[in-house]
Amino acid sequence: MTINEPFHQTGLIEATQTLNRTPVTMLGLGPMGQALAGAFLEAGHPTTVWNRSTGKAAALTAQGAILAESAADAVAASPLTIICVLDYGAVQAIVGGLGEALRGRTLVNLTSNPPERARQMAQWAAEHGIAYLDGAIMTPTTTIGHSSAVVLYSGPAAVYEAYHETLASIGGTSVHLGEDPGRAAAYDISLLDIFWTSMSGYMHALALARAENISAKELLPFAQNISGILPEIMTIMAEQADSRQYPGEGSNLRSAAAGIEHIVHAAQAHGIDSSVLLAAHVIAKRAVDAGHGMDSFARLTDLLREKRS
Amino acid sequence: MTINEPFHQTGLIEATQTLNRTPVTMLGLGPMGQALAGAFLEAGHPTTVWNRSTGKAAALTAQGAILAESAADAVAASPLTIICVLDYGAVQAIVGGLGEALRGRTLVNLTSNPPERARQMAQWAAEHGIAYLDGAIMTPTTTIGHSSAVVLYSGPAAVYEAYHETLASIGGTSVHLGEDPGRAAAYDISLLDIFWTSMSGYMHALALARAENISAKELLPFAQNISGILPEIMTIMAEQADSRQYPGEGSNLRSAAAGIEHIVHAAQAHGIDSSVLLAAHVIAKRAVDAGHGMDSFARLTDLLREKRS
Ligand SMILES: NC(=O)c1ccc[n+]([C@@H]2O[C@H](COP(=O)([O-])OP(=O)(O)OC[C@H]3O[C@@H](n4cnc5c(N)ncnc54)[C@H](OP(=O)(O)O)[C@@H]3O)[C@@H](O)[C@H]2O)c1
Ligand SMILES: NC(=O)c1ccc[n+]([C@@H]2O[C@H](COP(=O)([O-])OP(=O)(O)OC[C@H]3O[C@@H](n4cnc5c(N)ncnc54)[C@H](OP(=O)(O)O)[C@@H]3O)[C@@H](O)[C@H]2O)c1
Repeated sequence: MTINEPFHQTGLIEATQTLNRTPVTMLGLGPMGQALAGAFLEAGHPTTVWNRSTGKAAALTAQGAILAESAADAVAASPLTIICVLDYGAVQAIVGGLGEALRGRTLVNLTSNPPERARQMAQWAAEHGIAYLDGAIMTPTTTIGHSSAVVLYSGPAAVYEAYHETLASIGGTSVHLGEDPGRAAAYDISLLDIFWTSMSGYMHALALARAENISAKELLPFAQNISGILPEIMTIMAEQADSRQYPGEGSNLRSAAAGIEHIVHAAQAHGIDSSVLLAAHVIAKRAVDAGHGMDSFARLTDLLREKRS
Repeated sequence: MTINEPFHQTGLIEATQTLNRTPVTMLGLGPMGQALAGAFLEAGHPTTVWNRSTGKAAALTAQGAILAESAADAVAASPLTIICVLDYGAVQAIVGGLGEALRGRTLVNLTSNPPERARQMAQWAAEHGIAYLDGAIMTPTTTIGHSSAVVLYSGPAAVYEAYHETLASIGGTSVHLGEDPGRAAAYDISLLDIFWTSMSGYMHALALARAENISAKELLPFAQNISGILPEIMTIMAEQADSRQYPGEGSNLRSAAAGIEHIVHAAQAHGIDSSVLLAAHVIAKRAVDAGHGMDSFARLTDLLREKRS
């Protein structure tokens, strides 16, 4: 940085760096869209940005991004368009009218969406002659452009190969999960399931700790330790789930149900909404009542999908 | 081991090792009770064991444990008794009649129980002249006797000091959280809240992945990566919770609610019971509807405890 400063000042280095970089268009400038556009700029890609509402591009244009007047103009500026917005409805609202503008170009959708929606988008893209990849970002905005980012993709391998290097600007680990356009989304929802359920538990735990005069800071190192023990337990449970064998020697559903129940009681005694954990207790208790009390918790992977009357 | 074998065979080493070790009584031989008794034996403590139902002591007696005929006999054998059973009700069922047998001795209760129960037990112990510590084991049976074990204690510092060395046989990190006997239990329920909610999420995610033809083994490395990113997010949320400031720049409740909703839909479409995540969605949605959509998820630490009509 310091060494190159004089060259940077002349603009020479930027010009060279940008020369061979694929132009990229970024639709959506929420926290993640901004982080992505920033990473492309950082890596020297000519970057065009657009957002439904105005006023979100200032930091990016200061870094050299071009702000397009419309989504159609934005898409016309680059062979590769990335969209990352709130949800599938927002994607539809934006690209629904861009079928022709995108024809012959590539669209990578990094918006979280259900697998079925990803497959529908792929279908729509095929009908409009648009090369399409569906993707999912598994890490927070702060990881974008750094080694800790994780992004999953699915769709035609040829499209992934063509833009793999450009997408590498996002940083970290990039994985192509196969041709089924819904596969990245299927991983995404499964992983977000873990993330959001865990986060809900953490919020509830902080509320409970606070009610017991334990600060979040006091609880933190122990809470982090829980994250530390999960990977090993996850491995054991994954093996059980795949083999559909659920030995409960180490810890069983009866013990889990009892444990969960007393957390619910303690939280409710403090007037804390415990509906999440209460639902978890109902499920565990139902498994115990069905005769699975001595099985491991992983038995639930079977029972959750049983149709009930 | 190999080097000492001849001495072991003569029983000389065991005799020396055991000489200065405090005798310990273990009440309850579930998976955790067995692991604890095993750790005390391993560390050379003369160990007396008892369990409500018979047939659980075989492995331990083979290692040198003495099996007592009754809980009262077991308690009489050692200055220090540890109890680790299913729940508070089980503790009551066992020690309820041991008030006199335990007088002048020390009882350490490593059963998971709510803070109020821990305080009641301390009260009962005081009335019977029993030195009492309430404790909570934060790690699985496999960690017991190893460096990864984490055990929290609360109650009189003098009692903790007196048996600190003996309790160190359990291994790993041992923390005394203060004189309030309910404090270890309060940490315990808060941490188990995170653990069981996370585990419930993981089971649901495995069921969802399976329905999408993703094996648990395929999902595992990414699921473990989620555990890897949680500590940093936990730190940020802990700071927000303590300061009661919830800036939503990085990620906000509106985005979270949308994300959670599409996981629920995808899971329900596969006939998977999604009551846990549905409850999480209701809470997040309520926060959005109350005008907190642009706040961070940590806003929920406040909202969960608001009394609602
Ligand atoms: N933030 C993270 O840490 C993170 C991590 C992994 C994945 N993701 C995923 O990345 C995606 C984007 O997330 P985000 O954090 O950037 O914020 P977000 O709040 O999920 O999305 C904000 C973006 O969506 C646009 N939008 C919303 N409704 C729209 C509509 N009806 N029509 C057009 N545009 C609409 C917003 O435009 P306006 O500005 O005009 O409202 C803004 O550009 C989401 O799918 C999220 O799940 C985020
Ligand atoms: N296992 C773990 O990984 C783990 C980790 C951390 C903390 N803990 C905590 O450790 C404690 C013990 O757990 P665990 O895994 O060993 O198994 P558990 O299934 O929770 O407890 C089994 C023990 O409780 C006894 N018990 C149950 N009901 C009883 C009653 N009414 N009267 C007398 N005894 C009764 C059982 O006796 P019988 O054999 O006669 O049924 C057995 O000794 C729990 O509080 C648990 O939360 C466990």
